Amino acid sequence: MDICRKLYDDAKVDTLVLLLPSNTLYLSGYSSTNCQIIITDKKSYFLTDMRYFLEASDKLGDRFEVVCGSLEDNEELIKGDTIGFEIGISYIEYLSLEKICQGKRLVDISDKIAAIRDIKSSDEIDKILKAQSVTELAFKEALAYIREGISEYELAAYIEYIMLKNGCSLAFDSIVAFGEHTASPHAHRSDKLLKTGEFITMDIGAKYQGYCSDMTRTVCFGNPSSEQTEIYNAVLKAQLEVLDKLKAGFTGRQGDAIARDYFASLGLEKYFTHSLGHGVGIDIHEGTGMTPREDRILKKGMVITVEPGLYLEGKFGVRIEDMALIEENSVKSLTNANKQLIIL
Amino acid sequence: MDICRKLYDDAKVDTLVLLLPSNTLYLSGYSSTNCQIIITDKKSYFLTDMRYFLEASDKLGDRFEVVCGSLEDNEELIKGDTIGFEIGISYIEYLSLEKICQGKRLVDISDKIAAIRDIKSSDEIDKILKAQSVTELAFKEALAYIREGISEYELAAYIEYIMLKNGCSLAFDSIVAFGEHTASPHAHRSDKLLKTGEFITMDIGAKYQGYCSDMTRTVCFGNPSSEQTEIYNAVLKAQLEVLDKLKAGFTGRQGDAIARDYFASLGLEKYFTHSLGHGVGIDIHEGTGMTPREDRILKKGMVITVEPGLYLEGKFGVRIEDMALIEENSVKSLTNANKQLIIL
Repeated sequence: MDICRKLYDDAKVDTLVLLLPSNTLYLSGYSSTNCQIIITDKKSYFLTDMRYFLEASDKLGDRFEVVCGSLEDNEELIKGDTIGFEIGISYIEYLSLEKICQGKRLVDISDKIAAIRDIKSSDEIDKILKAQSVTELAFKEALAYIREGISEYELAAYIEYIMLKNGCSLAFDSIVAFGEHTASPHAHRSDKLLKTGEFITMDIGAKYQGYCSDMTRTVCFGNPSSEQTEIYNAVLKAQLEVLDKLKAGFTGRQGDAIARDYFASLGLEKYFTHSLGHGVGIDIHEGTGMTPREDRILKKGMVITVEPGLYLEGKFGVRIEDMALIEENSVKSLTNANKQLIIL
Repeated sequence: MDICRKLYDDAKVDTLVLLLPSNTLYLSGYSSTNCQIIITDKKSYFLTDMRYFLEASDKLGDRFEVVCGSLEDNEELIKGDTIGFEIGISYIEYLSLEKICQGKRLVDISDKIAAIRDIKSSDEIDKILKAQSVTELAFKEALAYIREGISEYELAAYIEYIMLKNGCSLAFDSIVAFGEHTASPHAHRSDKLLKTGEFITMDIGAKYQGYCSDMTRTVCFGNPSSEQTEIYNAVLKAQLEVLDKLKAGFTGRQGDAIARDYFASLGLEKYFTHSLGHGVGIDIHEGTGMTPREDRILKKGMVITVEPGLYLEGKFGVRIEDMALIEENSVKSLTNANKQLIIL
């Protein structure tokens, strides 16, 4: 079934107006800097400008009526009394929509489209896998590139260079941290230079045809101390536990608890200072999460990250992150890179 | 005078609430993923969370009262009946602000802060110059890197690598186009491979400590045809004319017309399909522009781009872009890279 029709049926409004780029890309498969989608009971319209009109007509003509112009130019397409919109739009977009829809009722339908986007098709999973293969290539090249005295800036730049060179964009700004900087889960790259004995955390992701990948690896430059090895192995064990136990039917909270409870059994839970993971797709964070506050249920076809970490302030931190596809009775890891502790 | 006080005086409201990252960075000089600024008649407050509280207190303590918490936690700081806000915020942020400000009047003060930001301080110009020096380094390295058969992806990735490696972020996604792709002003990089005789357009910019640079150069791989040389020289002459004639007191429209009229004198104006330029600073496009619809006046201390271009569909295009600082009786180019036609 066409996803525009499915969304229309779920939303239970007279007309839908979609403006957020991640949603218009999802519904149309087409990316441009100017597009709006209108869905009525009979038809789906794709609005764009002259720059994209011909290409969009060619690619989307069988599923959409492609219209040249803006929402303001096409008010008559917005039919009925109840109009579905996305609460995530800008206030300026809202004001403009409110003006066009005078006398009609605006209803937020964000949850409806998020629920549909949460379940990935095989075509979407292929794109995520392609993005991930480029992320893994960048990781492999990074391992060969790392040397004493390199800066965080340089290593991050090199990793992003490999991803971009291979036709991807970046799913997010890479996190590359050395030594005590690895103790900060969201470290910002700096001019810090790499020294022997330091951990290196790389949280990186390429984006391919609109779909994100996301992976974290922590490696050691030189021999690790026994404390480093112990913490690394605890994080790895937690991650493997989650990948082993998780399946459709768990809530996000129950998923998170697998890792949190394991850390608690070692007395390390206070060092696990963030959530276990998040949904990933067109947006790097989307859909159902893996957090202590997530009561929604993981369903077959969702793609989530599994990224436990332990952070010892002033010392070091470790995070290991794979993407996983939720299946009926298990999860399938979408990440192939080695995760035994790599010593460079 | 402290810019928060100046903004307060200009805005003529009881309290200002600033949420847009570019504005909070401008007012505080401090960048974090979570900050809000409240300005009352007596005080300026910087709201952030635990992650940034200590660092922000240390850096901003003499100009702001740094408060740990969100707007919702600090409603009592929002005093009076008329509250200034930025219309550019998200609809969700607006709803939250509206709730906090129940019974008060919300007034858009975007123009007030934009007008202040439009005039750059010497410290801001230094940051733009530093960003530009890294952009020029990347351009220089790119010239040495270019070879037959390289893809647009690879060259763009290499340029961005050099900028990132040198501690900058990207002001925008670089435009790198070869051959007939240069005929599109906003070309998207592709897997197209470089061939002899093709123009290469590089529209690139590093960002340093929050400030953007922006430069375009078109070079030729191999010997140019006489048509390529003719169009290149027309664009160069147009750009030099603008840099020669422009000064404080011109409207943006009058600035744009210098190039447009010159192209018209050659019968080429129909190939100049965009505006002459835009203001640049914390945002890559900000403030007073250089467009046929801009009636605002260029003032001393503004930084704008001067980027005429000619685009021959199906053949090639040329764009040459410098940044310029508006002075009393002239402009000062902030761009040093060679702009005579480079033949590689």
